[in-house]
Amino acid sequence: MVCNVIKVGGAVVEDEGMRALFLERFSSVEGMKVLVHGGGRSATAVAGSLGIETRMIHGRRVTDEGMRKVVAMVYGGLVNKEIVASLQTSLIDAVGLTGADLKIVVSRRRPPVEIDGETVDFGYVGDVVSVNSSALRQLMEWGKVPVIAPLSFDPAHGLMNTNADTMASEIAASLSEFFETTLTFCFEKEGVLDPEGKVIPFIDKGLYEELKSSGTVSGGMIPKIDNAFAALRRGVKTVRITDTGHLNGGTVIYG
Amino acid sequence: MVCNVIKVGGAVVEDEGMRALFLERFSSVEGMKVLVHGGGRSATAVAGSLGIETRMIHGRRVTDEGMRKVVAMVYGGLVNKEIVASLQTSLIDAVGLTGADLKIVVSRRRPPVEIDGETVDFGYVGDVVSVNSSALRQLMEWGKVPVIAPLSFDPAHGLMNTNADTMASEIAASLSEFFETTLTFCFEKEGVLDPEGKVIPFIDKGLYEELKSSGTVSGGMIPKIDNAFAALRRGVKTVRITDTGHLNGGTVIYG
Repeated sequence: MVCNVIKVGGAVVEDEGMRALFLERFSSVEGMKVLVHGGGRSATAVAGSLGIETRMIHGRRVTDEGMRKVVAMVYGGLVNKEIVASLQTSLIDAVGLTGADLKIVVSRRRPPVEIDGETVDFGYVGDVVSVNSSALRQLMEWGKVPVIAPLSFDPAHGLMNTNADTMASEIAASLSEFFETTLTFCFEKEGVLDPEGKVIPFIDKGLYEELKSSGTVSGGMIPKIDNAFAALRRGVKTVRITDTGHLNGGTVIYG
Repeated sequence: MVCNVIKVGGAVVEDEGMRALFLERFSSVEGMKVLVHGGGRSATAVAGSLGIETRMIHGRRVTDEGMRKVVAMVYGGLVNKEIVASLQTSLIDAVGLTGADLKIVVSRRRPPVEIDGETVDFGYVGDVVSVNSSALRQLMEWGKVPVIAPLSFDPAHGLMNTNADTMASEIAASLSEFFETTLTFCFEKEGVLDPEGKVIPFIDKGLYEELKSSGTVSGGMIPKIDNAFAALRRGVKTVRITDTGHLNGGTVIYG
């Protein structure tokens, strides 16, 4: 049995037109599937309107008590439920979940870390401990499509903010126990691009090292590809990085 | 088989101490159960912080596009997920849902209505058309506890704001097809009170008419009791109005 875990983030989540196109493509993916979404830009916008300052350190959001409420509202409520309602309109029987629902994703609050000689406390940020793949499998076997917000659950601290790429990667790895799992990271660009802006169709470990040395791959793409290799090591069959229009195109990462 | 549908609203949802006490009592209710929650005060507070004006007509919220986003965030995200996380901490395997998830509660957008000679458009407010009681039953037979936000789903318009008492009453009526269903409205007061402030233990149709004529029952209590009688007519076994501390006490309404 094949299972597709598709992560969508960046502008695709925020822009209504891009989201509609993506959801149309997602709806036509056959068989069992899970959607994991981000929503960071909306969270930053809502936080701003509420007078709550967004603090990022190395591209990661610091989640204090106020920001935790914002991400619960924006990821768990606004973005998640708008996606679920859109999918239901397309006759996809979606169910929106955070890590707390059915204990789908259990995490442990990240302890303060040392960065550039400074101690940084990311606040209510959770590192994934386990995924309840049996519950996800049960829902999918019932014909339901889980739509998962980037919020995990720490039994000692409640809802935790967790990076959506990591959520997707952990979920895909965990589902590999039951299914032949494909993990797709869907964002604004067509894939990993070469210096001429053309999609690189396949990347293995060796090529990845070359692309990093030459600077072709940099910034936010590095943790994304690292996540991809981590997923492959843990049993995921294929990892793909692509845009909304080409869920079968883009760049394939292989171990 | 017995099924308990428990609706919690008012200050119980907003006040952390009252909510914790309620959830403790709710956790100890045996057998199959569904929790339906409100959250109007939080929605008003968040709307205020976002500079969105709350407009109420005859105690009902007018839901324009801005307010729809607020209730999606507050009911579907903040309140729902905080309750789910609390229940999971108490080892109750909760799953938070809106009417859009699994199409649990389908509605139709309310057409503009005539009130006091004026045409009032309540906006994105849905009147319940159907409840997916099979999906709720399936979840409960699997040992899960549905936690439902007061948002329904109109296939033509998306997420809709729907009164939480109505949601609870419709859900209880629908589950009566499968179970011996009890519907409990849980709020700040101990039950329906007589003029001396003592709980009236039982109310039937006849007594209800007397209590209305004498003014003992008035305001927001009238739609609550009307909802109770409607549920009884549609097969619900018992309806109870009580506070957080006495899920087995309060006032019992009977047909």
